[in-house]
Amino acid sequence: MLNIGVLNQGIVIDHIKAGGAMKIYTYLNLENLDCSVAIIKNAKSNFMGKKDIIKIEGTLDGINLDMLGALDHKITINIIENGVIIEKKNPDLPKTVTNILKCKNPRCITSVEQGIPHTFKLTDRENGVYRCVYCEQAFERR
Amino acid sequence: MLNIGVLNQGIVIDHIKAGGAMKIYTYLNLENLDCSVAIIKNAKSNFMGKKDIIKIEGTLDGINLDMLGALDHKITINIIENGVIIEKKNPDLPKTVTNILKCKNPRCITSVEQGIPHTFKLTDRENGVYRCVYCEQAFERR
Repeated sequence: MLNIGVLNQGIVIDHIKAGGAMKIYTYLNLENLDCSVAIIKNAKSNFMGKKDIIKIEGTLDGINLDMLGALDHKITINIIENGVIIEKKNPDLPKTVTNILKCKNPRCITSVEQGIPHTFKLTDRENGVYRCVYCEQAFERR
Repeated sequence: MLNIGVLNQGIVIDHIKAGGAMKIYTYLNLENLDCSVAIIKNAKSNFMGKKDIIKIEGTLDGINLDMLGALDHKITINIIENGVIIEKKNPDLPKTVTNILKCKNPRCITSVEQGIPHTFKLTDRENGVYRCVYCEQAFERR
């Protein structure tokens, strides 16, 4: 079984839906950062069967991690300092997100025209449902 | 520091040039496989300063791992069974590769016309240099 050692300082994003880590990796622009990053895809999980995990060594200055709630509302974000979890939280779901989710409705104005921001509103906080403000299509996590 | 536990059965691709893991991840189509995968980006390395590592639990049937030599000729491929490395090898560099490397010369026929296979030939085995068969542009690893 794959597992990963402890971090001294950094962020662990846990309980990501299996297969969902790459979207978060892309959103956080981790490809272009110099810090060490570990991504575990399809890790075994007692609660979820399978899950993804991302571990980032160092800090992510200026990045609003709550935005990740729009990508996956069930993730847990652990902030680690000196090898100890100092904060453990589920992201607050932002009411509106722009250019984080993409509308997949081929008849939506955002699909037909170029340059229109993809804006979604939170319509069901409990289930983390976001809908496109133009066509009301729900964002589907795979 | 990030590190990853041992595998019982699988493949470890080590000594990947830092920042190069995603190309290999994409080539091996790991996004769409069900097996557990760990990617460590910018891991500390005594020899390389920084490196990437990919660990794959399970087997990759039908995939020619030697093709990875075209993407990064300095990688080490470790095959693991029952928790033990049973084979450790550097990929043999294939003489010709098709649709693994992309020619970035904007004036190359493969850039101008659609549907032409991107074919590269090995022209310098020692340094792992591949050149486009149409325009002779060398493939540059970043």
